Amino acid sequence: MTESDRSVPCFADLKEAAARLKGVAVTTPLLESELLNKRLGIRLLVKPESLQKTGSFKFRGAYNTLARHADVFRRRGIVAYSGGNHAQGAAAAAALLGVDAVVLMPSDAPALKIQRTQAYGATVQLHDRWKDDRDALAAEIIQQTGRVLVPSFDHFDVICGQGTVGLEIASQCADAGIEPDAVLFCCGGGGLSAGASLATKTLMPATLAFGAEPEAFDDTRRSLLSGRREDNSRGARSICDALLTRCGELTLSMNRNTLNGVLTVSDSQVLDAMRTLFVEFKLVAEPGGAAAFAASMSHAWPRSRKNDQPTVVAVVSGGNVEPAVYAAALV
Amino acid sequence: MTESDRSVPCFADLKEAAARLKGVAVTTPLLESELLNKRLGIRLLVKPESLQKTGSFKFRGAYNTLARHADVFRRRGIVAYSGGNHAQGAAAAAALLGVDAVVLMPSDAPALKIQRTQAYGATVQLHDRWKDDRDALAAEIIQQTGRVLVPSFDHFDVICGQGTVGLEIASQCADAGIEPDAVLFCCGGGGLSAGASLATKTLMPATLAFGAEPEAFDDTRRSLLSGRREDNSRGARSICDALLTRCGELTLSMNRNTLNGVLTVSDSQVLDAMRTLFVEFKLVAEPGGAAAFAASMSHAWPRSRKNDQPTVVAVVSGGNVEPAVYAAALV
Repeated sequence: MTESDRSVPCFADLKEAAARLKGVAVTTPLLESELLNKRLGIRLLVKPESLQKTGSFKFRGAYNTLARHADVFRRRGIVAYSGGNHAQGAAAAAALLGVDAVVLMPSDAPALKIQRTQAYGATVQLHDRWKDDRDALAAEIIQQTGRVLVPSFDHFDVICGQGTVGLEIASQCADAGIEPDAVLFCCGGGGLSAGASLATKTLMPATLAFGAEPEAFDDTRRSLLSGRREDNSRGARSICDALLTRCGELTLSMNRNTLNGVLTVSDSQVLDAMRTLFVEFKLVAEPGGAAAFAASMSHAWPRSRKNDQPTVVAVVSGGNVEPAVYAAALV
Repeated sequence: MTESDRSVPCFADLKEAAARLKGVAVTTPLLESELLNKRLGIRLLVKPESLQKTGSFKFRGAYNTLARHADVFRRRGIVAYSGGNHAQGAAAAAALLGVDAVVLMPSDAPALKIQRTQAYGATVQLHDRWKDDRDALAAEIIQQTGRVLVPSFDHFDVICGQGTVGLEIASQCADAGIEPDAVLFCCGGGGLSAGASLATKTLMPATLAFGAEPEAFDDTRRSLLSGRREDNSRGARSICDALLTRCGELTLSMNRNTLNGVLTVSDSQVLDAMRTLFVEFKLVAEPGGAAAFAASMSHAWPRSRKNDQPTVVAVVSGGNVEPAVYAAALV
């Protein structure tokens, strides 16, 4: 069956993505801190996708997309738009596969993300996040150049690539004899949670799956409640620059099936999570990358299924943060 | 054959340590950054032992030591002395195995290291690094209490535990089809380099092995040249608090057989390495933990054996750094 036969990824598609990413993406470890577990009263495992190539899970989806039809992308080139992590993921995947890349980025994206996208060899075009219509900008480029759009989340192959995070979590938990009560994914457009919760729900059906969103960008939370695709208010702001995105149609339709809910976090909870990841795990997390960990720390988890300490897995989704911003968060 | 039959670890002893650590220690990944590789003109792989339990490789040696004779240690308790990473490693291993621990630490050790050693449940006794004779202090405790000393590096079982870092490097390189030209280990007392270079020299005989020391604490470098156990000068200082140690007798005798030399690094090279590990790898490294990476970045590597880009593996040995110190290093 090919993609055109049906539009929603199934478990077998995640396995195909994993085969494509084997030996290319980093199999990030599962880490835990006995001291933090003792303090929180839960067993909290961290999956640090900050250690993934390009510093976020986004590399998985971009590489899976490009590698699946590499000949087409090599011939036509790609265009992507992104707040910075998909930008780097697409640029790095394109470089590895010999594909020419143009990336539209908001001018207020962290300078580090812009610089590194360029360093991977992509041509970066800046736009105003709050004023410009980036869909229209991308459409113009596509019309003029024949490039293929590689969406940052609402796309079959991208979601399948991100889903490999969930496959790894399930496999690593099985190897370690761990049966998590819940697994949490940072949620912007919802690609990571859509793909990865499909994997965990398939392989660990008793494990709850949650998204984690910034308080002011809780569109997926509200969409799951209302049953339709909600948006965020124009004036909303958050330090989680990676998560300032409205959920997609495909991602929402998938998340509706596999997420048990969405937890929200404040900026100060995110900063506290970044500091805790530094002290307890020696991990650099960007604000948006720390949202699921922040939610794991602050949520009042019920007793586990087995009536002992609850076990929670949180994906740290990215680590692309400016040195000065990070330094300020630490002290 | 038991330890008493011969005093120098051999390869089989490392494999026994690995079996003891299986499922307890983190198998840390091998990471690389395409952007950094391009900039340096070498392929530089990082083995982040900062992600190990307690934030450094020291957990491996301490756990291997305690687990091998757990009944004895449970009955008698242990005493350890350490600048902070072995302290945490010994305290955490003792907690996991139900062993009572007293740890002597220098009063100028990073507060984070002291606090965390206590948090693992050990009793910490502070002393003056530059004045007190910690051997005498430990001997007194041992005489009064019957506790067993767990040395921080110059000990058969400790070295075998640290050697598992080298086993993992060789195994991960083989899996990835990588044949490194050189592998570098941070070197204080020399336990990591002694054990891990035994592993890499056995499994990858064509790969050179180097220690990395702070310029002012290059006792292992000078000892390898002079053939006898050299010391560091009284006035020597370095930001690498984890490496302010004179080499041991056993570690030196082993390093003599398996190290091809020792590279030295300045404080400013170490700070630059910490920043690079932040930007390129999203890894928090403490100063001493970044020494081998700093040496890898600054050394003028010759063309590889296969006459292409040289491939170098650097162990990042620890990440226990104060938030304020780290923040200052970043900006």
